[in-house]
Amino acid sequence: MPVFAKKEYQTRVSNTKRAMEARGIDLLLVSQPANMNYLTGYDGWSFYVHQCVLISLDHEEPIWIGRNMDGNGCEITSFLDNKNIYRYQDDYVQSLVKHPMNFVADVIKGKGWANKNIGLEMDQFYFTHRAYVELEKDLPDATFKDANVLVNWVRVIKSPGELEFMRRAGKIAVEVIDTAINSIDVGVRECDAAAAIAKSQYTGTLEFGGDYPSIVPLMMAGEATKTPHLTWSDKTFKADEAVLLELSGVYKHYHAPVARTIFLGKNPPRLMVDTGKVVIEGLEKTLDFIKPGVTAEEVEAKWREAISGSTIVKESRLGYSIGVNYPPDWGEQTISLRPGDKTVIKENMVLHLIPGIWYEDVGFEIDASIQITGTGCEELYKYPLNIFTK
Amino acid sequence: MPVFAKKEYQTRVSNTKRAMEARGIDLLLVSQPANMNYLTGYDGWSFYVHQCVLISLDHEEPIWIGRNMDGNGCEITSFLDNKNIYRYQDDYVQSLVKHPMNFVADVIKGKGWANKNIGLEMDQFYFTHRAYVELEKDLPDATFKDANVLVNWVRVIKSPGELEFMRRAGKIAVEVIDTAINSIDVGVRECDAAAAIAKSQYTGTLEFGGDYPSIVPLMMAGEATKTPHLTWSDKTFKADEAVLLELSGVYKHYHAPVARTIFLGKNPPRLMVDTGKVVIEGLEKTLDFIKPGVTAEEVEAKWREAISGSTIVKESRLGYSIGVNYPPDWGEQTISLRPGDKTVIKENMVLHLIPGIWYEDVGFEIDASIQITGTGCEELYKYPLNIFTK
Repeated sequence: MPVFAKKEYQTRVSNTKRAMEARGIDLLLVSQPANMNYLTGYDGWSFYVHQCVLISLDHEEPIWIGRNMDGNGCEITSFLDNKNIYRYQDDYVQSLVKHPMNFVADVIKGKGWANKNIGLEMDQFYFTHRAYVELEKDLPDATFKDANVLVNWVRVIKSPGELEFMRRAGKIAVEVIDTAINSIDVGVRECDAAAAIAKSQYTGTLEFGGDYPSIVPLMMAGEATKTPHLTWSDKTFKADEAVLLELSGVYKHYHAPVARTIFLGKNPPRLMVDTGKVVIEGLEKTLDFIKPGVTAEEVEAKWREAISGSTIVKESRLGYSIGVNYPPDWGEQTISLRPGDKTVIKENMVLHLIPGIWYEDVGFEIDASIQITGTGCEELYKYPLNIFTK
Repeated sequence: MPVFAKKEYQTRVSNTKRAMEARGIDLLLVSQPANMNYLTGYDGWSFYVHQCVLISLDHEEPIWIGRNMDGNGCEITSFLDNKNIYRYQDDYVQSLVKHPMNFVADVIKGKGWANKNIGLEMDQFYFTHRAYVELEKDLPDATFKDANVLVNWVRVIKSPGELEFMRRAGKIAVEVIDTAINSIDVGVRECDAAAAIAKSQYTGTLEFGGDYPSIVPLMMAGEATKTPHLTWSDKTFKADEAVLLELSGVYKHYHAPVARTIFLGKNPPRLMVDTGKVVIEGLEKTLDFIKPGVTAEEVEAKWREAISGSTIVKESRLGYSIGVNYPPDWGEQTISLRPGDKTVIKENMVLHLIPGIWYEDVGFEIDASIQITGTGCEELYKYPLNIFTK
């Protein structure tokens, strides 16, 4: 049983078909796991082999194509009729003589779609160059079009059901960051703190079980606070060092990220305190500003204006859209809060603002995961915007 | 500090250069996170954006190219000189007007490599079709060659240091499967069992801290035992249902997978008991057979012969090579134990044999993670080959 009602998936498929029509695409080949899940409900850790969902304007339901052993998983987790589940035999896997896309092309030919305008997710990590080459070879009469983030943009406005899942993820996020702050201390091994955090992520709450995040706990201590994407080791935390945390609560693959900074001592360095103060004020002013009608780049400009009295330079984007996702990223690859992004912010978008600072001499992370409302924004969870000292 | 001595990385780079020469490749662009880690030590969860390592026959050290904010992470975790760490600015990330591979091409041009034979990992999930298109556009004088699993094949024989890491992963695997068997019971939520398992994976042992696996805990209960790659929900386990587990111990990204089957009752169904008996005997006979000099397909044939008296049909490959890895897969993509794979098995290869059965009416998983020795094989850990009832 998929996690949403069949009707919700049907709406998503209709919206995708409208986006396809607008771009002259007859048939869409979807490889990104989050997009496959969004359109069908399919939920398995099978994305280490080639698989896809086909959406055709002249076919009501999506078609799932994957490895034979995963077909039963699709029967269990998707809303699809069994007749729309196609399974390739195991000798296609990592073979030197055949490729899963040869099977996909055979399905496309069998359906009479070989001469169509076919949309492909050209820059998605689960669509390799070789996948393209095989399709091009097997479907010489097709016209291939880039449909890289077509479904991602369909996902950008969340349904009431999705928003409810994200609020549940927010409840879990509070448990997760509480657990992190309680676990991390001088003399504790980093791996033991990461273990407590993962346990909290997977457990969730008594009411809502948790899920795996698209990014494992990121945890930078001491020297590592000058960079954002490291994980843990078996070193112990030291007195008077800072720890940056980027975590998430997750409910059925919907994310509510949460990032905070801990200082393991009573007196964080002046530079960290000053940086924190500027960043937190800047974040608060930005949150006050966001509402339907402003653009992504205007949000970022407001942030830049708010910190302009300081020495802080934030080169990287301020934030991005979030929702359902699978490893390796919880970012949706649609809206980026940065100069040049003219997307108009609308009600029921969900954004992650993460004004992280990773300098040689100071690192600081804090964030907000927000839903856009009719008049402004609302956080997916409430958690103090502080440096935590202990 | 990288986890191995600089000399070990230098040996790996030399071996890679020899493999490049043999295939007429002057410059290799490595995108797979495990290959990047193997060649440089780099270890960050930054693989959701484009990044790579360049190996050139006329350049001693590898060159790392990634996002600006991750450059500091490369300084911390790799053995590379800072001068070999190249950082692209943040406006390359998920941009509509530029692509990280434009920056990579600029580095290649700057080094005078624009007219070389350039090897690319054409069917790796972190090398998209778009990445190829951008390189082709920016480097019209280059000749591109497929180097899809070139580094993976260099990785196939493990060094003493790697084997020690895999034995540590084996120690952790025993803790992990013990935890799983103790946690899973009638009335327990699946997510709570998954949480206990993840905690055990990340904690590791008192001596050796754990790491995140390339595949999250796979846990199929009840109806889901007919498929291999599902995760957990917040349902509770029921009396008299089977639970299939595919897990791993992990030490610094080196894996020791462990799969077992639990039955939540005293009397597993006859079909499961019979299937288990055949599979376990078949696995044991296969383990007795494996030694240096036999081929991958001979190992599989021995397994097929061993189960030939039964009704079991195992369509998918029996196993594959393992070692260092990152999501989404702990398989190395080199050796597959299946018909047609004529790779000669050699000392210090490490294989995962997983004769999983996923039928409509019975599922059963068990495995062995083994190191090839001079005369046969040795398991990375000892754990009973049973169906566990409780």
